[in-house]
Amino acid sequence: MKLRFTKMHGAGNDFVVLDATRTPMSLTPEQLRRVADRRFGVGCDQVLVIEGSTTPGVDFGYRIFNADGSEVEQCGNGSRCFVRYVVDKGLTDKHTVRVQTVNKILELRLREDGRVTVDMGAPVFDLPQVPFDPKGVTPRRENGFALWPLALGDGITAEVAVLSMGNPHAVQRVDDVDHAPVGLVGPLVEHHERFPRRVNAGFMQVLSRSEVKLRVFERGSGETLACGTGACAAVVAGIRLGWLDDSVEVHTRGGDLRIEWAGLVPGGPGLEASVHMTGPAQTVFEGEIEL
Amino acid sequence: MKLRFTKMHGAGNDFVVLDATRTPMSLTPEQLRRVADRRFGVGCDQVLVIEGSTTPGVDFGYRIFNADGSEVEQCGNGSRCFVRYVVDKGLTDKHTVRVQTVNKILELRLREDGRVTVDMGAPVFDLPQVPFDPKGVTPRRENGFALWPLALGDGITAEVAVLSMGNPHAVQRVDDVDHAPVGLVGPLVEHHERFPRRVNAGFMQVLSRSEVKLRVFERGSGETLACGTGACAAVVAGIRLGWLDDSVEVHTRGGDLRIEWAGLVPGGPGLEASVHMTGPAQTVFEGEIEL
Repeated sequence: MKLRFTKMHGAGNDFVVLDATRTPMSLTPEQLRRVADRRFGVGCDQVLVIEGSTTPGVDFGYRIFNADGSEVEQCGNGSRCFVRYVVDKGLTDKHTVRVQTVNKILELRLREDGRVTVDMGAPVFDLPQVPFDPKGVTPRRENGFALWPLALGDGITAEVAVLSMGNPHAVQRVDDVDHAPVGLVGPLVEHHERFPRRVNAGFMQVLSRSEVKLRVFERGSGETLACGTGACAAVVAGIRLGWLDDSVEVHTRGGDLRIEWAGLVPGGPGLEASVHMTGPAQTVFEGEIEL
Repeated sequence: MKLRFTKMHGAGNDFVVLDATRTPMSLTPEQLRRVADRRFGVGCDQVLVIEGSTTPGVDFGYRIFNADGSEVEQCGNGSRCFVRYVVDKGLTDKHTVRVQTVNKILELRLREDGRVTVDMGAPVFDLPQVPFDPKGVTPRRENGFALWPLALGDGITAEVAVLSMGNPHAVQRVDDVDHAPVGLVGPLVEHHERFPRRVNAGFMQVLSRSEVKLRVFERGSGETLACGTGACAAVVAGIRLGWLDDSVEVHTRGGDLRIEWAGLVPGGPGLEASVHMTGPAQTVFEGEIEL
């Protein structure tokens, strides 16, 4: 099978984008792993599949696969590439598109400067929905928001804020993110038993109330240069914990993202405002691979 | 500038191949680094540029660039991809082609099974030619061949065989190559002061007289899945040291290579037989990138 693809990146988080709007496409996990392999395939953090949609008010369907072939719910940097792709390829003449992912509808907007603002939806703090199992442990609180202790074995512990941005996140604050042991601690957090569906592990250094540095060990992918939902989760956690204001520049190894969140809305859980993320999306090259 | 390319691999060592036979091509080091970058470019260990040749008896010119943009003399796995490319693309109707690299002429043969046998030329043992500076140190010898002690700092030492396959190699024997500290020791050997032009650092585990496992930390590229000249250098060193017979299967992380060398020819230095390497070469995908 010959497969045409577009390689893109959003702040260094890279994607192989496949157009399945005209012809349905179903790749096996083995084919997905092959496509994602950086030597024997095209190479990417995730494979994005763009589908048509028959749902009223929805422009496209959007499926996301990790480099290990597993399907995931969301990827913020991928979403930016998604909208850039459908506009650049002429699949739509709108600059704001609505997209159905596995578990939510996203609204994506291509700005005049080529950057993309994504409505990432509201954060979810309800622990069973993350999912996170708090059984038998008492969190420390800052500004009323919980920081959960995680025993990681070998005497290593971490203290994490837990929330979902459509996918689960555990965010920890570090003093110096450039020297944080992300490769060591990341997998231990990812596979910690309190996260039954595993978790993305974020490491955030707070520079000021409007500026942070972030590294994320992504579930199923390892450390990536920039994780969009990870940036949202880190900033939301920082706002809830009283560390950050409502608009924050997030420096990642792949580039900068602007995250905005209005915070808790009176009325309580379930009524939180959406998180907005603005960042770059770029086409790297076009190609064709025989699978 | 729009650049058409072919992504290939030979035993997991991967290449971006560019056809400059019709139009001269001169990429800046920055453009080469961009092409080789696995996230912001196509991604490869090396960029191979195929040129025409006006030299009698030579079919093509062949230039090789590392991921850091520097030009190098030779790459065995790249040579296999080279011949597969020129045959598959119809640039020649010969199955044995002669190619001019920066410092030697290679003869390459595409076999019926799709594997490629490459005459890698004779090994060079003359130390100034490697180049290697033996000043003030006495080697240990096995079977008459020198093993040089290298002080790597922090109390780490290595004992290496030194030779050139058109590019410099330092080969050390290890008991268990899967657990050898290649990422730690490799860069220390590569940049050791006794190698004025740096060196490729090989780590070889001898399984029998006709079978070895090998990992190579390549000069300018870091550890790669398989290094063709590294496999030649390791087997030649093993034969000279009395550890190996004249035809050896080399298992690398990217695949298997067969290395054959007749050994020293009576008449002494400068009259050694060529090393022959047989292994796979495959096209991964075709693409086009805007530089």
